[in-house]
Amino acid sequence: MEEKFSKILLQKEGSFITFRQDEVIMSNGKKAIRDTVQHPGAVAVLACTSQEEILLVKQYRYPIGRITWEIPAGKLERGEDLVRCAQRELAEETGFTAANWQKLISFYTAPGFSNEIIHLYLATDLQEKQASPDPDEIIEYVKLPLAKVYQKVKNGEIIDAKTIIGVLWLVKLKGLET
Amino acid sequence: MEEKFSKILLQKEGSFITFRQDEVIMSNGKKAIRDTVQHPGAVAVLACTSQEEILLVKQYRYPIGRITWEIPAGKLERGEDLVRCAQRELAEETGFTAANWQKLISFYTAPGFSNEIIHLYLATDLQEKQASPDPDEIIEYVKLPLAKVYQKVKNGEIIDAKTIIGVLWLVKLKGLET
Repeated sequence: MEEKFSKILLQKEGSFITFRQDEVIMSNGKKAIRDTVQHPGAVAVLACTSQEEILLVKQYRYPIGRITWEIPAGKLERGEDLVRCAQRELAEETGFTAANWQKLISFYTAPGFSNEIIHLYLATDLQEKQASPDPDEIIEYVKLPLAKVYQKVKNGEIIDAKTIIGVLWLVKLKGLET
Repeated sequence: MEEKFSKILLQKEGSFITFRQDEVIMSNGKKAIRDTVQHPGAVAVLACTSQEEILLVKQYRYPIGRITWEIPAGKLERGEDLVRCAQRELAEETGFTAANWQKLISFYTAPGFSNEIIHLYLATDLQEKQASPDPDEIIEYVKLPLAKVYQKVKNGEIIDAKTIIGVLWLVKLKGLET
């Protein structure tokens, strides 16, 4: 079932992703072409207050031309520790720090064309400090009750895969009845 | 908060995605560079039998170099009706047809760099016919109890975002206690 690399047909470096088109040899010996987008990987943070409120960040996502509500997240720097990256992104985007970090799950967002992996953490025991966003990002954050966030998943206001996974996971974990 | 297109810096067509790097003007007037991967969009099918079993397909995913278990899914053809596409993909990958189709949710897999949107359907009243996979895909399918599939999400054996969303959604819908 595995496919073997044969040759690179095309390669272009972006600012943080690399696009590549490869010829591969399938397990039945046939050749096929595979488009791939290489991504450094990312962390995402489900930050939950003691009152069961979730931190969401609002930002414009150019690739889809829409403003989204997402859990805080960001790309891994080379060799960066996962929890350290999660702490950095939470602090940069919301100004919060957290005393407890629990790994929930890792998943591939789009394995049909990209190797982007997201490591999802639950952050609790939150404390508010000062946000320091990346100069290339314009971000606002809100704190919303989990039940309301779940409602936004169900009614289609939350449209980001990692955020939907985080919210559904927490709804199940907390046994939320809605 | 919106970002305006300024100019295309780079564009490369793949076999089904297009990689583009744009210069944009942020709402604060600053310039920034955005990498984007344009995708035709896709459907995914949570096919559930009357015994609460889920159909999963096993395939090698070249971009991540791993074999995955995923719900049946596939790219939209230009102008294709969503339900028609979902029916086609379910039939091609598993040989099953379904009498009932219910739209659950649509989401963006990776809005930070791609416009890929996935439309997730619940398919019930299943009937087994004959699979007819795409010649460029080598796919096997299995039928597993929802509780077992949920276990595979929790223990990290299922690593695909759309499949995780579908399974968590159904677990909540069915009120599965695990």
